[in-house]
Amino acid sequence: MTIQEMGTRAKAAAHVLAAASSGQKEKALLAIAAALRAQEAEILQANTEDVAEGRQNGLTEALLDRLTLTHERLGGIAAGVEQVANLPDPIGKLDAGWTRPNGLRILKTRVPLGVVGIIFEARPNVTVDAASLCLKSGNACILRGGKEAIRSNLASARVMRSALQEAGLPADCIQVVEDTSRDSATALMQLNGYLDVLIPRGGAGLIQSVVHNATVPVIETGVGNCHVFVDESADADMAAQIIFNAKAQRPSVCNAAETLLVHKNIAVAFLPKAKALLDTKHVELRGDETVQAILGSTVKPAVEDDWATEFLDYILAVKVVNSVDEAIAHITRFGSGHSECIVTESYANSERFMREVDAAAVYVNASTRFTDGEEFGFGAEIGISTQKLHARGPMGLTELTTVKYQIYGSGQIR
Amino acid sequence: MTIQEMGTRAKAAAHVLAAASSGQKEKALLAIAAALRAQEAEILQANTEDVAEGRQNGLTEALLDRLTLTHERLGGIAAGVEQVANLPDPIGKLDAGWTRPNGLRILKTRVPLGVVGIIFEARPNVTVDAASLCLKSGNACILRGGKEAIRSNLASARVMRSALQEAGLPADCIQVVEDTSRDSATALMQLNGYLDVLIPRGGAGLIQSVVHNATVPVIETGVGNCHVFVDESADADMAAQIIFNAKAQRPSVCNAAETLLVHKNIAVAFLPKAKALLDTKHVELRGDETVQAILGSTVKPAVEDDWATEFLDYILAVKVVNSVDEAIAHITRFGSGHSECIVTESYANSERFMREVDAAAVYVNASTRFTDGEEFGFGAEIGISTQKLHARGPMGLTELTTVKYQIYGSGQIR
Repeated sequence: MTIQEMGTRAKAAAHVLAAASSGQKEKALLAIAAALRAQEAEILQANTEDVAEGRQNGLTEALLDRLTLTHERLGGIAAGVEQVANLPDPIGKLDAGWTRPNGLRILKTRVPLGVVGIIFEARPNVTVDAASLCLKSGNACILRGGKEAIRSNLASARVMRSALQEAGLPADCIQVVEDTSRDSATALMQLNGYLDVLIPRGGAGLIQSVVHNATVPVIETGVGNCHVFVDESADADMAAQIIFNAKAQRPSVCNAAETLLVHKNIAVAFLPKAKALLDTKHVELRGDETVQAILGSTVKPAVEDDWATEFLDYILAVKVVNSVDEAIAHITRFGSGHSECIVTESYANSERFMREVDAAAVYVNASTRFTDGEEFGFGAEIGISTQKLHARGPMGLTELTTVKYQIYGSGQIR
Repeated sequence: MTIQEMGTRAKAAAHVLAAASSGQKEKALLAIAAALRAQEAEILQANTEDVAEGRQNGLTEALLDRLTLTHERLGGIAAGVEQVANLPDPIGKLDAGWTRPNGLRILKTRVPLGVVGIIFEARPNVTVDAASLCLKSGNACILRGGKEAIRSNLASARVMRSALQEAGLPADCIQVVEDTSRDSATALMQLNGYLDVLIPRGGAGLIQSVVHNATVPVIETGVGNCHVFVDESADADMAAQIIFNAKAQRPSVCNAAETLLVHKNIAVAFLPKAKALLDTKHVELRGDETVQAILGSTVKPAVEDDWATEFLDYILAVKVVNSVDEAIAHITRFGSGHSECIVTESYANSERFMREVDAAAVYVNASTRFTDGEEFGFGAEIGISTQKLHARGPMGLTELTTVKYQIYGSGQIR
């Protein structure tokens, strides 16, 4: 099937799904969760083949681990679908409503986007996660995952599509692109007139490719060059705990910190405390000259590129700054607009940092690791937007909706 | 100056403007309005040269009229700036706020987008309108107008920039692109890393060019293939007034109706009433066979293309349908998702049309001409979005903002 045919089917399915009740959608999601559990053998078999081929093709152990599904993992995925089923329906919510002097009554009402495209890499769990969030928010989806996971993705899709049909909704609410060539990705990026938004989920290379090649609306996600700035007035122990958590609790994710900025007046007191904690996880420090002078020669010298790098690893760039101004200027220059933190006891500096740092999430005295749909209390997350249009920061169900103005008149003309 | 240099300047200006108080922005806008009045001679002189060259180049009278500024028109433009100055500031408004179980306090706060690009045609009034809306919402703007109005645009920009400086804000909050070649438009469309959004304002050709060539986020505006559906239960007199207003009050705008759909059971009673009114403005009707049978041979036959055409003129396509289903299907197929209207006395059909028609604005018993920022009560409008991402329908000041999550902690880690 061509991508355009998939688009036509998705539009037709979206039209039906937009009119489905909350109850119907909830029932369909619970049916999907049950089917994933009942038919796990089919999915695990397909996944075993993907993993075997990945191993033959020399995928790294880390990639193979991401690719692998197990009974436990699939159970977790099904439980996630049940959780999404039980979230409040974002559709039909009134954002606002008012009456004009001429008597027109205007309602601003949440409706589905329509058709959502997701491009992602070799993570078969994304197929089910993304499909369930799209379904709950009334959107048909076209999912185009990496070739490494194609058998797993198609198997999950088969299970979900038959569950949809049994629940009385069109199977085409969920479609997985079989063709994993570059051509199919490009066709999806340029499916104007069918796709209301395309969301890339994956590494920086994938995201940039989508941003530069797509002619459909895109939500840019995921790149996080996040900073923790330790102000001169900071509680040094709190600051050490925060940078340790922000860097080392899970370094591979976009809300992990990549650079530590330290005010010169606290550097001597603070840096050894931080290093002691970071050493427990063998975090490699790359410091400027002042940092090296304080911490000694085990600290590697930082080069210019380090300030701009999202390491996603146990590596931390460290710089001593002369003022909160210098810290903000550094973040303005190198930050990716994801998550930024100041540790301070100064009211004035906390307010200034909050106001002047331009990022999706700005923290005072808390780890950047909280930038996450679950941690924010959204109940689910389709990704973290690093652009400013439509959605910024963690995207929950509401971010998968748009509005419709419903205007009730009694013959008004201009 | 290259477009990239303009981008660098805009970013620096946006950083200052984002921290400006409501009072500062209001003062700057009032200074701009006063300067436009005080220095009208400079702007009118530049405009006279633009109009003279346009006449030499054979622009139509309609285009020359759009291009022309006068004392009265410039006064109206300045009054518009004063109106924008007096609107509530959208920046700093809390969309939501909550406290997490771990004590993190999360605020979702409106902040400027940053740098807004506008690409438009030979309408010099857009320069000031767009600049004032961007300024009020805390955004720096880069304006790229058509070559026909370049002298007028540059003169307006000079006046506004010096007023900004006198008011203590960076002149680079407002920049007009001098180079009116296609290259400068393309460079603006691909100014990733500098431009947070690009909004095209103009005809379908311009908008499609931007949608297909831009790599920065775009808001698609303006194309309106709008329908009025007269249901069998409609009040025929009200319906005639509504289609007359929707078509003929101002046919050149995107919220004007282009196709009239009429239920077969009311066609004989309704169509002659509608024609009598439309005839007073010499509206050309293009009807299907049933319409011709009822109204006679003065009605031209409609061809397939007519259903898909935004005439923007005194032309109306007319079709008789068998049911509300057929009307909704026709709108789903040919509508551009702008404004759609049902005229009906049936509660069930009004609810069905509201729910199933997928458009920015859906009306019961009122003219489509109300889809407009002023008419909605927004006080101003930067355009009408026909996409679903970020903004849909009339865009006021709020649509020129994004959000920032501000998170207040006391040492929380994960």
